[in-house]
Amino acid sequence: MTTSRSDLPVVLDRARPLAAQITGQLRDAVTSGVLLAGERLLSTRELAATLGVSRTVVTSAYAQLFAEGWLEGRHGSGTYVADVTPGLPPVRVPPGPARSGRVPAGQVRPSQATPPSVSPLETDKDGRIEMLPGVPWADGIDPAMWRRAWRYAGTRPPSSWPDACGLRELRAELVTYLRRSRALTVTADHILITRGVSNGLTGLAATLLSPGDRAGVEEPGYPAAREVLRRAGAEVVPCRVDEHGVVTDELPDDLRLLYTTPAHQYPLGGRLPVARRQALVAWARRTGTVIVEDDYDGEFRYDVAPLPALAAMDPEVVVYLGTTSKMLTPVLGAGWLVGAPGLVDRITADRQRISERVPEPVQHALVQMITSGALERHVRRMRLEYARRRSVLMGLPGVIGDTAGMHVVLELPPGRSAAEVASAACDLGVGVFTLDRYYAGPPNRDGLALGYGAVPLTGVRRAAGLLRPLLAP
Amino acid sequence: MTTSRSDLPVVLDRARPLAAQITGQLRDAVTSGVLLAGERLLSTRELAATLGVSRTVVTSAYAQLFAEGWLEGRHGSGTYVADVTPGLPPVRVPPGPARSGRVPAGQVRPSQATPPSVSPLETDKDGRIEMLPGVPWADGIDPAMWRRAWRYAGTRPPSSWPDACGLRELRAELVTYLRRSRALTVTADHILITRGVSNGLTGLAATLLSPGDRAGVEEPGYPAAREVLRRAGAEVVPCRVDEHGVVTDELPDDLRLLYTTPAHQYPLGGRLPVARRQALVAWARRTGTVIVEDDYDGEFRYDVAPLPALAAMDPEVVVYLGTTSKMLTPVLGAGWLVGAPGLVDRITADRQRISERVPEPVQHALVQMITSGALERHVRRMRLEYARRRSVLMGLPGVIGDTAGMHVVLELPPGRSAAEVASAACDLGVGVFTLDRYYAGPPNRDGLALGYGAVPLTGVRRAAGLLRPLLAP
Repeated sequence: MTTSRSDLPVVLDRARPLAAQITGQLRDAVTSGVLLAGERLLSTRELAATLGVSRTVVTSAYAQLFAEGWLEGRHGSGTYVADVTPGLPPVRVPPGPARSGRVPAGQVRPSQATPPSVSPLETDKDGRIEMLPGVPWADGIDPAMWRRAWRYAGTRPPSSWPDACGLRELRAELVTYLRRSRALTVTADHILITRGVSNGLTGLAATLLSPGDRAGVEEPGYPAAREVLRRAGAEVVPCRVDEHGVVTDELPDDLRLLYTTPAHQYPLGGRLPVARRQALVAWARRTGTVIVEDDYDGEFRYDVAPLPALAAMDPEVVVYLGTTSKMLTPVLGAGWLVGAPGLVDRITADRQRISERVPEPVQHALVQMITSGALERHVRRMRLEYARRRSVLMGLPGVIGDTAGMHVVLELPPGRSAAEVASAACDLGVGVFTLDRYYAGPPNRDGLALGYGAVPLTGVRRAAGLLRPLLAP
Repeated sequence: MTTSRSDLPVVLDRARPLAAQITGQLRDAVTSGVLLAGERLLSTRELAATLGVSRTVVTSAYAQLFAEGWLEGRHGSGTYVADVTPGLPPVRVPPGPARSGRVPAGQVRPSQATPPSVSPLETDKDGRIEMLPGVPWADGIDPAMWRRAWRYAGTRPPSSWPDACGLRELRAELVTYLRRSRALTVTADHILITRGVSNGLTGLAATLLSPGDRAGVEEPGYPAAREVLRRAGAEVVPCRVDEHGVVTDELPDDLRLLYTTPAHQYPLGGRLPVARRQALVAWARRTGTVIVEDDYDGEFRYDVAPLPALAAMDPEVVVYLGTTSKMLTPVLGAGWLVGAPGLVDRITADRQRISERVPEPVQHALVQMITSGALERHVRRMRLEYARRRSVLMGLPGVIGDTAGMHVVLELPPGRSAAEVASAACDLGVGVFTLDRYYAGPPNRDGLALGYGAVPLTGVRRAAGLLRPLLAP
């Protein structure tokens, strides 16, 4: 039995958010080696008493550090420092994300959430429920918010000479948003407005890759990323993923680029632990590989705030891709690429050579939704709503992955094949994806991906009831 | 001296537009061989008297046939049937385009045109005048029209499952627009909504081309088209252009695809004559080449109505690309591809593999501008405005090309180099392009391209005054 560290170097400024200070200082203590792997922390009750703050504050700070992978163990049975490698490479940890409207798991009650409207999109005319991963809830978008955004866009006259990197106002807003929500400290010159993740990856690939270059993609992973890289002339190299995310030990040394989803591995749902994040960045430094971080649904975490971006660790080797496709809707067609200014300039110039652009009114509408706070309110409402749907599916057997996003993955009991289950589900009117579609090569797992973004709670409940008998061993 | 054909088989239905009937029946007479190359037609006065219609009607019909290339000669000295190849291949000639607001050359008077506002975009802060080809007049867009379009877009809720070919309402509107303005008779299933010409070409290339395929591009031609095809893995083959457009006799037989601008060759300004159009389509039939018709600025003709599309001749071998980038603004990011439904389906499926889409609100805004008539009113206003600017530049020596579009090309007198003139113009505060940037290989012409789309009349006048001394032999 280890003794708890009671000499934690936490000094609080009462005028600033307390949980964020605790999070930041404990992170620093780990990265600087003051706290060592395996050390036990004070319990939340003890630390709260020591610091003279409410226990909620400490619980929130610990939850964030758990989610980011700095801590291990369970709240009930003791909290331990995870095995991270301090100081290799130098870890830049900006102030932790502060966020209101956090929804700890298990605290979602129907009374807190927006009552779900009965959506015509729950089912199509045949009464089917299509559980497509990656599709958000279009009907959850407040019509008044949508109207205001486009009304504003209509008041902005079109430019003769639009800025090819995207509207300066939008990039300035994203500077603040990324710092607050992802601990990414960048300037507007680091940001290129894109139409979304695929579009950002296309621009990056056109600039970075030469025909025959090897580009890594998680296996299983996002098929569109593979396709974009293939079209850019790259040889796509599958990189194995386990329940935590990409397996850094196995990465080959000759990749020009690695596409990865550290916040929420797509589709399996792993959250890349801090030690692997450090290993990944060190590997990229050593091999000269560019890491592409796709943070497609980082807004939707149901336990803690969004995680700091991998790019916050080492912005020189990580290019970050964000999108509004999951947090809002793919029909908006807006996203961002964050990278070194020189790289952003090269991608911008390259995009101009093929007249590639993001419609200006789309950018104005997004500015309006960010500056008015409407986008963050929308994300909070959706987070509540998705959490409720998710909790229904968590009752199904075989769920793997992290408490995030808009889909769950089910592994099947021995003897059941995903194709058979999907086919039987289809016969019952429930459309689900089998995992094999996310593999470039032969699948090493058999399972199902169930998207709940576009299916209202009633549909999710019905689908769960129909699927449960099919998932029994 | 030839005698005029006085037995023309023109029979008029007084209840329908007269000029369009004359145009259509004379076209039919040429394609069916009733009228032969070199035959002289009645003068406009004689034919008007024969048919019992006003001379204006016949003049308008002849002007359209001149523009389309069916007739040759001058109104004053006799009108002759051009050398076209009847019936090879079967030419589908739908009813000619009917349009109000036509602006015959020379009829543009200041009092008819919208007074140009003094635009802050005429010059940048240094007082420079940037005559960029291909940039339309952003300040010419009526703020009320723009506001209404986006306000409408905001009232349309985002779809969960958007149609990957584009909004059905928009495609239905384009069916009517293309029939009326381009004599293109298609259904909504022939139409894919794109973000513009480059985007349409990208989708087509991804679907049609295999690495190493040879793809022809006009030389000189549109650099972005070359770049798009190169990125799709094609070997880009320069295809020589003369003052009429692409030289069909010289086209190699082993192209998979030919990108061409028959309505208004970019940048030289030629209008592809009927005989070459027929030869082009016959060549494509024989060799299995897909012709890509880029109709980027077909709305801006200052003599006659927009020409029938090449695709109207043989929609099976021609894929048509249209855009709002010139007629409205490139910041909208909307265009269309018209092709056989099977091809459109394949391109659509292929675009979905890389999450390629056109923002839905952009499509709704365009629907509003088309159905309200605002887009056509805008085009008419811009046509008047551009015609006035154009007429200023027509006074400069060395202008070549057709009376269309938003730029002119100047050939230089012997002994003057375009680079020297451009450099001297730059020193005087006038930015112009040299023709060499439109060539893949060594240029066979030396000249300048002057865009007047984004420069108000006052700026065009000032630029013309500054350029004139530099253009003297």
